Amino acid sequence: MALIVKKFGGSSVATTEKMMSVAKRILEEKKDDDKIVMVVSAMGDTTDELISLAKGINGEPYKFPREMDMLLTTGEQVSIALLSMAFQTLGHPAVSLTGPMVGLQTDSAYTKGRILDITPERVHEELNKGNIVVVAGFQGSNSLGDPVTLGRGGSDTSAVALAGALGADSCEIYTDVEGVYSADPRIVPSARKIKEITYSEMLEMARLGAGVMQPRSVEMGEIFKIPIHVRSTFTKASGTIIQGDYSMEEKSFVIRGVAHDENVTKIAVLGISDTPGIAHKIFDALAKANVDVDMIVQSMRNIEKNITDMVFTVSNDDLTKAKEVMETVAKELNASKVLIEENVTKISIVGAGMLGNPGIAARMFGALAKAGVNIEIISTSEISLSCLIKGGHVKEAVNAIHDEFFPNR
Amino acid sequence: MALIVKKFGGSSVATTEKMMSVAKRILEEKKDDDKIVMVVSAMGDTTDELISLAKGINGEPYKFPREMDMLLTTGEQVSIALLSMAFQTLGHPAVSLTGPMVGLQTDSAYTKGRILDITPERVHEELNKGNIVVVAGFQGSNSLGDPVTLGRGGSDTSAVALAGALGADSCEIYTDVEGVYSADPRIVPSARKIKEITYSEMLEMARLGAGVMQPRSVEMGEIFKIPIHVRSTFTKASGTIIQGDYSMEEKSFVIRGVAHDENVTKIAVLGISDTPGIAHKIFDALAKANVDVDMIVQSMRNIEKNITDMVFTVSNDDLTKAKEVMETVAKELNASKVLIEENVTKISIVGAGMLGNPGIAARMFGALAKAGVNIEIISTSEISLSCLIKGGHVKEAVNAIHDEFFPNR
Repeated sequence: MALIVKKFGGSSVATTEKMMSVAKRILEEKKDDDKIVMVVSAMGDTTDELISLAKGINGEPYKFPREMDMLLTTGEQVSIALLSMAFQTLGHPAVSLTGPMVGLQTDSAYTKGRILDITPERVHEELNKGNIVVVAGFQGSNSLGDPVTLGRGGSDTSAVALAGALGADSCEIYTDVEGVYSADPRIVPSARKIKEITYSEMLEMARLGAGVMQPRSVEMGEIFKIPIHVRSTFTKASGTIIQGDYSMEEKSFVIRGVAHDENVTKIAVLGISDTPGIAHKIFDALAKANVDVDMIVQSMRNIEKNITDMVFTVSNDDLTKAKEVMETVAKELNASKVLIEENVTKISIVGAGMLGNPGIAARMFGALAKAGVNIEIISTSEISLSCLIKGGHVKEAVNAIHDEFFPNR
Repeated sequence: MALIVKKFGGSSVATTEKMMSVAKRILEEKKDDDKIVMVVSAMGDTTDELISLAKGINGEPYKFPREMDMLLTTGEQVSIALLSMAFQTLGHPAVSLTGPMVGLQTDSAYTKGRILDITPERVHEELNKGNIVVVAGFQGSNSLGDPVTLGRGGSDTSAVALAGALGADSCEIYTDVEGVYSADPRIVPSARKIKEITYSEMLEMARLGAGVMQPRSVEMGEIFKIPIHVRSTFTKASGTIIQGDYSMEEKSFVIRGVAHDENVTKIAVLGISDTPGIAHKIFDALAKANVDVDMIVQSMRNIEKNITDMVFTVSNDDLTKAKEVMETVAKELNASKVLIEENVTKISIVGAGMLGNPGIAARMFGALAKAGVNIEIISTSEISLSCLIKGGHVKEAVNAIHDEFFPNR
């Protein structure tokens, strides 16, 4: 017997036909004594439709976050009612439960709630009665009993957290790809599906641009030690298992994958006098404006004149805010120039195996050199290594690095 | 200060524009220290749309009543979120609450729940904070915490019951007509709006075909002694007040109104031998088939041969069932013939004032005679008098009776 939480996103349940095929598949794969909990999102574009309805009342509906949650939580409630009917139509008992009904308690940060606790007695009761339990993802309730949504990626997070609270054997996240790949398959045709990856590697991959899993849900899996199986809605093939460690075979790879992020802006502040406190001035001002800074490099430019340059990267999304801040700060610091370069690319390799393998960095730089790609900034973490390159060279760069570490079999 | 519960139906909140005008109107009419509770239905055709969505899963979705309630309760939840945003957009604090959140407890008869109790502490709290409280009609939850809908007319019922539990000063039901009329204004151009009517008169009017209010909500008003004000969504004119008694001026009318019902089938069983037990045989068989019998007349036709006729009426909707039953029973009773006449009309006058006024019946029959309308069956209750006439004469008949009791001023 296994207790398995299975999460299906909005595109997997976008129509009643799709719901019926999800239900069929689940029943085909289910062993007689398996206990199944389904976590589902709102159907297809429902959430967007509800938001545009709210805009008919007020152009900025998120000014009323409590009411937005009251509105948006109906989306998953529709899904769970229909999916539960689908199971019953196919002859298996099932019951739908909203987020509040599974005891998912949140704080009161409407539209971006955090999970405080889950007390899923009702889920156990319904499972023990032989039901498949269909749970609304993305939602819970606060101490007042008001519905609260968990914000972006919330369905994954609530699935993994519910799996943890239930003591489930695993949590399966169904998605439109077959798992996590060693590089983006749209760019690297030879990218391989990663069989196993650790929570920290997956978090690092996500942070560095690999979009499959939401970081919060991976953290949740690590906290509760629940293996997360990322797999395809459309095939029955095994996907990627995210867990604390991996099997011997998988350890032979020194890196897990190549991630890249094209949503990067490089900002260079040139010709500032190199005195203590300049770094603090720049990055404190940016932090106060809520701009997340990623890579930072300070270089000595001119020892005689005692001036230096400061180079760093931010997300393209923060460009406007960062520009404003830097205009003020550059004047204060008497900088000679601020250079801004949008849409540069950060390429990273990730893998816990890098730690005891000193040659890894050299191999990455070598691959880029051979491909004729110039490196602008380098930064490292315990289990990753990132290089900033000019925009427009992603394909060559990512393929060169991937070929180096995952030679064609 | 007054605590007023105001109920708006689905057509009044069918679009976001209509919601904004409802909110505007409420704020214009609200006195500073009034406490307002809004009870609203799902927007326009939402409920029908949800039902047809469910039919994509299973052609008979009501086979899953629990899941239907999970599905349908989302309709009102969308309305309350948007209407609460509308009030806030217009500058007045407001908060939305679902049926379960206002403590409306029901039994577990999903899709046709009955209210067991209401514990509306949260509503008082929110009112005391200065909020307009926007409540989802038509819904509550059972002892498991599952959402349960109240069935047809449930929004009116929950509004009146909530008004009762809150100790409200009145409950206003907004509708697409200006109130309850002394006859159907589409048929009787001179029909007057009834200013005041008692609960029992209103119940009798509803039973006899006047469709404005759902009987269960009127009963609820009588139990809690809450005056119900039926009024128009589109004008600010005062409508009809349903309460325990009426003022002196209104007492001058001996009848309150003329109701009519064209959804009636007359069934005559002819030539049955007049022995004890024949009435029981006929009406027991009908009752077992769940056919509601309304008027009943037994006449002596032929004393020598000791045979009689039995004539009664049922709703057109029950015609098929009644026909089947009567074919069997007629054989058992050796009846000579069963005559069935669809779409006959029942015309009734209603008024507590009839009790001490012996001439009323004669005046009704006289009016019909003068209009050349033949009476087929007559029946009476404490506060009403009904005549069955052939179909196709409604207009003359209802106008004749109305002119008799409400002469043009």
